[in-house]
Amino acid sequence: MDSSYRFIDACWGKPVDKTPIWIMRQAGRYLKEYREVRQKVTFLQLCKTPELAAEVTLQPIDILGVDAAILFSDILVPIEAMGMQLEFGDKGPELYPPIRYESQIDDLTVPDPEDTVPYVMNTIRLLRKELVSRKVPLIGFSGAPFTLASYMVEGGTSRNFINLKTMMYEAPALAHKLLDKIADMVIKYLNAQIAAGAQAVQIFDTWGGILDAYDYEQFAFRYTQKVIEGLNRENVPVILFVKGGGSLLEKIKTAGSDVIGLDWMTRLSDARQRLGADVAIQGNMDPTLLFAPIPEIRKRAKMIIEENAGRPGHIFNLGHGILPPTNFEHAKALVEAVHEFSAQ
Amino acid sequence: MDSSYRFIDACWGKPVDKTPIWIMRQAGRYLKEYREVRQKVTFLQLCKTPELAAEVTLQPIDILGVDAAILFSDILVPIEAMGMQLEFGDKGPELYPPIRYESQIDDLTVPDPEDTVPYVMNTIRLLRKELVSRKVPLIGFSGAPFTLASYMVEGGTSRNFINLKTMMYEAPALAHKLLDKIADMVIKYLNAQIAAGAQAVQIFDTWGGILDAYDYEQFAFRYTQKVIEGLNRENVPVILFVKGGGSLLEKIKTAGSDVIGLDWMTRLSDARQRLGADVAIQGNMDPTLLFAPIPEIRKRAKMIIEENAGRPGHIFNLGHGILPPTNFEHAKALVEAVHEFSAQ
Repeated sequence: MDSSYRFIDACWGKPVDKTPIWIMRQAGRYLKEYREVRQKVTFLQLCKTPELAAEVTLQPIDILGVDAAILFSDILVPIEAMGMQLEFGDKGPELYPPIRYESQIDDLTVPDPEDTVPYVMNTIRLLRKELVSRKVPLIGFSGAPFTLASYMVEGGTSRNFINLKTMMYEAPALAHKLLDKIADMVIKYLNAQIAAGAQAVQIFDTWGGILDAYDYEQFAFRYTQKVIEGLNRENVPVILFVKGGGSLLEKIKTAGSDVIGLDWMTRLSDARQRLGADVAIQGNMDPTLLFAPIPEIRKRAKMIIEENAGRPGHIFNLGHGILPPTNFEHAKALVEAVHEFSAQ
Repeated sequence: MDSSYRFIDACWGKPVDKTPIWIMRQAGRYLKEYREVRQKVTFLQLCKTPELAAEVTLQPIDILGVDAAILFSDILVPIEAMGMQLEFGDKGPELYPPIRYESQIDDLTVPDPEDTVPYVMNTIRLLRKELVSRKVPLIGFSGAPFTLASYMVEGGTSRNFINLKTMMYEAPALAHKLLDKIADMVIKYLNAQIAAGAQAVQIFDTWGGILDAYDYEQFAFRYTQKVIEGLNRENVPVILFVKGGGSLLEKIKTAGSDVIGLDWMTRLSDARQRLGADVAIQGNMDPTLLFAPIPEIRKRAKMIIEENAGRPGHIFNLGHGILPPTNFEHAKALVEAVHEFSAQ
């Protein structure tokens, strides 16, 4: 079986020769090859320069042997295109001015991504050419509306999301108007990525899991579902990853994605039992396990594969992004272990 | 029914006239009366001065009308007594030097709490006298061994717990030796609180929920269970709160506590179904809901009470500590709403 299909087949729940694996943030600071590119430009310049973005996207394919490439970009790039100022400082991303008033929401635009973020689609087109010889498919991605809204209202990362929560509770109509506009943007953005050549798309709801079940349904689920319904997804599997969403899995499934990403706090066998056989699962090793000695990494990879018990529809991944201090040899050992232990 | 028993009765799963409520961190910065006391002394001085610690412990009883008092202290106070240096700076607690070597673990002591942290027991004795007229019981507390170990190995708060995880994976015998010694300390510490007059004890496992199910069992559950088995708990209910532990509830129950604390990410009705009727439940409103207008707070309090569906063994609480920017009038409205909607 051609390995370019291993990842896609698993997304569709089809049998595969070996469990496919890719790693969230696999193009990143833990690779010296990435740091060498990154030191020449700012993070945003790297996102906006197709040749460089493509170069770092390809690094983990060549170095680790993962089964899928994921576009190198940032979830906030299309928010800048909506009209907010975006900067990456020492404390992470900053968006300003933070969204607090209806007039600010009205001023946000939902542009054609080919006009405002052409570099994203150009990176995808470039990558598809580069990936032919590597026989690996390309994943596009976006933040989920709730996660994007959290950055827009808080002005950056947040601990307790007090500004967003206050908007949700004090002025729910405003929050819904913002989320709906973001959902419209995400639909256009992911469809543009698909049109440019993305062969799968992942929706990252990094912060959806901080909501209780009621708020999750009102303010996160509803807009993620709208996004998924708006996608041109005939041959393009959709992966939905809600960090911290273990308690919400049954609900998350009804958003309609083909694959559900799991963090490491939910046992894969439990998730499989709760989700049934008609949706694929992606995950779910604790990223800090890559600080373990390689024999322990191999043991734990085997445990996760055994929890899946040979069912089709499993893509191996970490339960969150790989951490910058990780030794790449350990990530490479994980990829090898997953292929070795899952081989028929 | 005397309200001094409402909280304790609910812990034992007995019927009560109204659902009892207390609030994690109810003695804290959101109260101007607390800030007035606090500005005269450092945080550690406040913990170590029984008259002042008792004063701030009593404030929420008088101001909010909650059904239980909880000792004002910090989970790291007994770690200082084991021999580490403790300071509270702008970035939160700092413990040094961080535990990395076996000799450091050997040097930690497991002292008699009456000798090393007498102010904790003196605060409890003082509070029991003060609480007689208020007819409210007193909760003592400790951090769980895993949570305490995380601060000791990381040297303070952490995001990814890389040092602790590295110890767990590279030198598991060292991690187990440390956790076992901490468990011995926690047993002595909580038994001293009980002997001094604590009428219930809560074990806070703030970080246990960041572990996968396998590591949770090996490095957190095992030592929490040891602590619970070591307590003199004939008439003293034990509450176990594992933040982020929604996926682990069935396991957590087997640690043997009388009450299980829930964060807001798990729906109370789901938790009840998974846990059965033979353990009480504490929780679980999102702390940020106190930023909502009072009618919304009342609506959401009612929803949680309705999820419990009148079963005995429910103590209302937030799913985590009350946040400093909270308006105390909103906390007070929550207490009133819980009593009003749950009244028979």
